[in-house]
Amino acid sequence: MRRVYMDNGNTTPLHPEALAAMIPYLAEHYGNPASLHAFGEQPRKALDEARGQVAALIGAGKDEVIFTSCGTESNNFAVKGVANAMKKKGNHIITSCIEHFSVLYSCKSLEKQGFEVTYLPVDAGGQVNPDDVRAAIKKDTVLVSIMHANGEAGSVQPLAEIGKITSEAGVAFHTDAVASTGNIPIDVEGMKIDLLSMAANMFNGPRGAGALYVRKGTRILPIFDGGVQEGGRRAGTENLAGIVGMGKAAEMARAEMAEKLPRITAMRERLVAGIKEKIPYIYHNGHPVKRLPGNINISMEYIEGESMLLFLSMNGIAASSGSACTSRALKASHVLTSMGVPVEVCHGSLQITLGRENTDEDVDYMLEVLPAVVQRLRDMSPLYEDMVKNKKA
Amino acid sequence: MRRVYMDNGNTTPLHPEALAAMIPYLAEHYGNPASLHAFGEQPRKALDEARGQVAALIGAGKDEVIFTSCGTESNNFAVKGVANAMKKKGNHIITSCIEHFSVLYSCKSLEKQGFEVTYLPVDAGGQVNPDDVRAAIKKDTVLVSIMHANGEAGSVQPLAEIGKITSEAGVAFHTDAVASTGNIPIDVEGMKIDLLSMAANMFNGPRGAGALYVRKGTRILPIFDGGVQEGGRRAGTENLAGIVGMGKAAEMARAEMAEKLPRITAMRERLVAGIKEKIPYIYHNGHPVKRLPGNINISMEYIEGESMLLFLSMNGIAASSGSACTSRALKASHVLTSMGVPVEVCHGSLQITLGRENTDEDVDYMLEVLPAVVQRLRDMSPLYEDMVKNKKA
Repeated sequence: MRRVYMDNGNTTPLHPEALAAMIPYLAEHYGNPASLHAFGEQPRKALDEARGQVAALIGAGKDEVIFTSCGTESNNFAVKGVANAMKKKGNHIITSCIEHFSVLYSCKSLEKQGFEVTYLPVDAGGQVNPDDVRAAIKKDTVLVSIMHANGEAGSVQPLAEIGKITSEAGVAFHTDAVASTGNIPIDVEGMKIDLLSMAANMFNGPRGAGALYVRKGTRILPIFDGGVQEGGRRAGTENLAGIVGMGKAAEMARAEMAEKLPRITAMRERLVAGIKEKIPYIYHNGHPVKRLPGNINISMEYIEGESMLLFLSMNGIAASSGSACTSRALKASHVLTSMGVPVEVCHGSLQITLGRENTDEDVDYMLEVLPAVVQRLRDMSPLYEDMVKNKKA
Repeated sequence: MRRVYMDNGNTTPLHPEALAAMIPYLAEHYGNPASLHAFGEQPRKALDEARGQVAALIGAGKDEVIFTSCGTESNNFAVKGVANAMKKKGNHIITSCIEHFSVLYSCKSLEKQGFEVTYLPVDAGGQVNPDDVRAAIKKDTVLVSIMHANGEAGSVQPLAEIGKITSEAGVAFHTDAVASTGNIPIDVEGMKIDLLSMAANMFNGPRGAGALYVRKGTRILPIFDGGVQEGGRRAGTENLAGIVGMGKAAEMARAEMAEKLPRITAMRERLVAGIKEKIPYIYHNGHPVKRLPGNINISMEYIEGESMLLFLSMNGIAASSGSACTSRALKASHVLTSMGVPVEVCHGSLQITLGRENTDEDVDYMLEVLPAVVQRLRDMSPLYEDMVKNKKA
């Protein structure tokens, strides 16, 4: 049976070049970069090189990149770290309704500690209105955290406009770019971003490696107390192989973007067109154009998303029904409901996320399997049966 | 030139079996364990198996192991997580003066938030007196955090005695076992430990993988807000290859301990005897017997530790002058000064830590190189010259 992975919005396969780069730092160069002896030399150079590779991907300075263990850590670090560093100045934070749980729940935590949080709405396309950001900024606002792209709905936010507003207001601007970094261009200078969260496994790097960009001069407190690693801002022995893999993946993502972006976008467009042609009673969620190249989010009426996933899986296809972090929670997606998708429709949503390894043959296969799966599930649905009968009557 | 790594107290080489176990989870099994599709199946099984392997090493239940990114995270999680969960019950914490910075500075952080911390002293052997723990416990004590073994001085604490006291008092007992786990036996049941920190890279597992054992029923708040991974107690995409490597390293450490422990202890004893025989004016720091099998901490008079390390490194030997986290800080070790070693003597301290890959030939080589390095450095020292002159006079 053909195996087709279309769950790249969840986690991506490791780039072969990244794997090759990692092996020596697992097997051979086990020294601690901080060591004074020769076993620390190569690790120290590798750590420095990886920092440069990651910085280059987002237009940052090398000394503005702090390595972490994952996107969730980066988001917690950014939101709590800035809030705690700035709490004498103010206690107001602005974010959006469709942020990742690691941002939303960090904000909820801060609310318990006395912070006030404004959750901005999004439109049907999943976009925040920059005017809403401007209107929400108060004298005691210390942080605006708006994601770059939503991994589930695919929507890409107008960061440059938001960055212009925050920078004029002198408020720190964080963006969760976990879903976007390496997949679409991002430039912390042009977009006036002060903090940016990344996760290597979202751009064909290894799991267990993330980073937070922190613009020079931005005040932030560490989450971990301890040693002096990462300039004293992230204590803990460095995951060197992971960091080297992240650096190489960043380099490859930058090198391959010009080829990958149009190719993946074209596959997405063909897949969406095919699904729309072959499957009735569907909603195409999110913005038609301002979205991640590989992201498709479609809700099917009269169907449970979970059943669809299992039937697809039996045919060798991996897809998702929403956020990876809640895939076992069976709750309606907070992202889709925030975009106005009715709860009952959310339950039939399918998230297909294409990546660098997907091919036209994968798209063909999906277009062969999915319509049959949907029809089979609908044939088992009493609601669907009623609807068809009513139509005929 | 021969290359001899005797800095295993800093970080250890990856076990070849652990590396072999990791590769498929880097290259092939990239699926998210939480996925409903087939790509998540093998990762889910592997995560479960690794949890069992780590649990078995410390005598815990499988569902009592939470994977983290490193020992520093585990220590921050334990100390802050229990303190914050218990703060309505009390605000007093007991720890020791020789804890790792990730425990000490977590305590300092909590002091700023209104917690009261008692820092227990240690004796010349680097041991905490269990009676001091008993005497320090108050009605509002919510946590006792005493490390299992000190990675620098090598001293092993009387955990069973301390655990008996904390369990009778009904106070949560955390131990930082980063330096000891996998190197000497530990049993959370027998020692009545409620929380235990581990780091894979300290027992020939990969960097970037740690764990915290939390006894069922122990109250603790997470550090990271976000997804539901690790039973909702540690959000963030799992570093699966790292976790698998940690599991395999735990299995190997358990299997090899009976062979490794006496072999490494014997090498240590021969090395200490040789150093004492060949080098005058030295102090052997720490407890003679109650210490980690591979740990040697010796202070040499009339010498700077940093110079000694560089000269050893020029001869292919890796050793350390103290904690890895401060190796570039040039401060006298808080561990050695707490044990009563004079500051000026601390500066000449050498930490040699043997591991599973060391051989008798490595010991021979060290015994050939070290005395010559020390003599050469002393010949360059005006203090040493004065002392020799005075002796002659």
